[in-house]
Amino acid sequence: MRDFLPEEASARARVRRTIEEVFQRYGFDPLETPACERIETLLGKYGEEGDQLLFKILKRGEGSERGEVDMGLRYDLTVPLARVVAMHPAQIQLPFRRYQIQPVWRADRPQRGRFREFVQCDVDIVGVESIAADAELIAVADAAFRALGLTDYRMRINHRAVLRGMIEAAGVAHEREGDVLVAVDKLDKIGPDGVHSELVARGFPTSVADRIGALLRARDAAPEDGLAVIEEFAGSTDAGRHGLAELRDLVSLVGDYGLDPGRWRVDPVLARGLSYYTGPVFEANLEGMPGSVAGGGRYDGLVGMFSGRDIPATGIALGFERLVVLLSERGAFEGQGAHADVLVAVLSATDRSASTRLSQTLRAHGLNVELYPEDRKVGAQLKYASRRGIPFAVLSGPDERSRGEVQLKDLRTGEQASIAEEDLVERLRSALTL
Amino acid sequence: MRDFLPEEASARARVRRTIEEVFQRYGFDPLETPACERIETLLGKYGEEGDQLLFKILKRGEGSERGEVDMGLRYDLTVPLARVVAMHPAQIQLPFRRYQIQPVWRADRPQRGRFREFVQCDVDIVGVESIAADAELIAVADAAFRALGLTDYRMRINHRAVLRGMIEAAGVAHEREGDVLVAVDKLDKIGPDGVHSELVARGFPTSVADRIGALLRARDAAPEDGLAVIEEFAGSTDAGRHGLAELRDLVSLVGDYGLDPGRWRVDPVLARGLSYYTGPVFEANLEGMPGSVAGGGRYDGLVGMFSGRDIPATGIALGFERLVVLLSERGAFEGQGAHADVLVAVLSATDRSASTRLSQTLRAHGLNVELYPEDRKVGAQLKYASRRGIPFAVLSGPDERSRGEVQLKDLRTGEQASIAEEDLVERLRSALTL
Repeated sequence: MRDFLPEEASARARVRRTIEEVFQRYGFDPLETPACERIETLLGKYGEEGDQLLFKILKRGEGSERGEVDMGLRYDLTVPLARVVAMHPAQIQLPFRRYQIQPVWRADRPQRGRFREFVQCDVDIVGVESIAADAELIAVADAAFRALGLTDYRMRINHRAVLRGMIEAAGVAHEREGDVLVAVDKLDKIGPDGVHSELVARGFPTSVADRIGALLRARDAAPEDGLAVIEEFAGSTDAGRHGLAELRDLVSLVGDYGLDPGRWRVDPVLARGLSYYTGPVFEANLEGMPGSVAGGGRYDGLVGMFSGRDIPATGIALGFERLVVLLSERGAFEGQGAHADVLVAVLSATDRSASTRLSQTLRAHGLNVELYPEDRKVGAQLKYASRRGIPFAVLSGPDERSRGEVQLKDLRTGEQASIAEEDLVERLRSALTL
Repeated sequence: MRDFLPEEASARARVRRTIEEVFQRYGFDPLETPACERIETLLGKYGEEGDQLLFKILKRGEGSERGEVDMGLRYDLTVPLARVVAMHPAQIQLPFRRYQIQPVWRADRPQRGRFREFVQCDVDIVGVESIAADAELIAVADAAFRALGLTDYRMRINHRAVLRGMIEAAGVAHEREGDVLVAVDKLDKIGPDGVHSELVARGFPTSVADRIGALLRARDAAPEDGLAVIEEFAGSTDAGRHGLAELRDLVSLVGDYGLDPGRWRVDPVLARGLSYYTGPVFEANLEGMPGSVAGGGRYDGLVGMFSGRDIPATGIALGFERLVVLLSERGAFEGQGAHADVLVAVLSATDRSASTRLSQTLRAHGLNVELYPEDRKVGAQLKYASRRGIPFAVLSGPDERSRGEVQLKDLRTGEQASIAEEDLVERLRSALTL
């Protein structure tokens, strides 16, 4: 788990704020849930591996001596959403459009780019069967990426029923579906030819491996071509026809949002790991970044596990931590240092009173001002401000004050000039383009 | 621990943002630390009671069966700050001005207004011995209260050395100081006469009880009068003189910030519970609200416990949860419902495409738009929007579109009118005063 020192914390806050504004632009409202959930709420929701990765909290009092556990740290934001919808039926009207940006905790072995505490960034629509809700989620994710300046992402869309239909149509027995998916899941690592060999090695006939291979090669086609491939490979099955019809609707609905068609694909082999998906699934990737930066899909069964009645739901999660890393690598945060616009230096103890009043004036005009809090040499104060990335410093001693002036120093260029104190706010505001 | 549904989550986000902006205006930068700290970092820092109130996290793997614990949930934000300063000496230059707004967890018995997960809101200056740092904190708290519209708060200031000096000067033996403080701490409950009786009952001479009683009555005096009382009651001791000199500086420094003098007091009996305070202490209260809404002070010893070298520090924390409750009681969040400005209704399935495009146009103009995601009767859609607190709805069917118009309905008044689609953005923006 990581400390975020000011520069990083500021960058994260900016990314978060950008994403939040987009979510609000699309009519989503915030939800916050506690870090701790009852252990029964969490156990059994994430598979056996997930149970192992829960951080468990010891009971207080007597139970603690027996090592008893009553709560666990939140593992994702989807289970808490399902619990909330079930617990507060009177306050939550459906459709419920919520976003939630909070940390989750997983006791994974720490490794590069994986953390035990990380922020998830979920946006979901609960209570809507229509595929229009899924289209809205693809559109909001697109808008978030664009707001972050990331236009080189690619969103891939599929439908769970399509996948079932294709495997059935390829002549794979129902009980061997899993084997096919395991091989297909290695695509990014071993390529389409590797998947073909793997399928043959696992005892599938060459005809099956050929069909799957053809599908894998179709994943980078335009949406219309992707639909044609699905028709060809899955149209003969009930599941395939159902999935295809929903995907066609989805493609048409997404088109109405005006997304750049180059940015999204129908990918006939996109599966998404989580077993609770029931309909459309989505995943976004960025050039040169392994893994996904967003993913989601429809999970019509999960909310019902808590509320005891069927409530459809669909959602997408942005990979907040990955996005921060990527934006940082691309220099998106460069030159964004301290929040302070200006350091007001204090030339000597007797100047503090005047410098304090000057700071207050600048603050009242909306400038972010750091007043140096100690009596130290001016050189040390300016060095401190430079290292902090504060762009300007203001110096004012008795001489300046007697003339109604201040010294304004641009810490980026080193330039320093006397200016009338009454012009200071305007000069700073225009230099900072506030 | 609580769920915050959208309305409450939005209100909390607004309060948080207001406070954050003020902290940034005063040159403070954000810090974030993980929810979990090593258990050794936490134990022994908050007294015996604090140790009992820690939420402890079970080790993963083998240790879990033996009930072993390696981490605990963050109990406050001050200990993590001290740890961070010690751990990252190369990245953190002093003076370090940081704010931190994050939840903390305490296994208190839940009771009205007390929660097991609650947000703390700390602002600290690390590495500065000068009392100017303490003055800056009083000023930033004042600015935060004003930004929240709370001008009826009162800040009280004292100095730990003053308290020691007064007790010594009253003729109380050093080992009985604690007894005096216990009696004085009941002031809010039993009043000055009650404290007097309590002191006598505890075996102190009437002369001592009289002196303490006089002090208690002086706590609502103006700062200058408070200083005079301290001079009278503690000026004869070394500790008293030291505290008085620092308090005089502090009063003068705070004066330079231009705070309304009616809003702050020198309170000779303000103690603040935490034993780690070493110099000035502060506490803010609001009319009609029991307990404090902000509190803090100088703690020159704590950072050294982690870093092994003396590093002075001072800080103040705003009572985020209390402020939210108070602002809510005062109606500060009324009329602030959903973030969405307008619902775009969908009259029938064949209208969805046009309604989607209209939504995207409005969003591109900075409006927060909810597009109704399901095919339901228009009446149900409008009722939903009203209940959500969305102020406007836009309806557009084939007739409207053929005339280049839309129906704009004000959901607060019920008024509905046909307007040209090209005027819609302007109409909404001016009605919403965006």
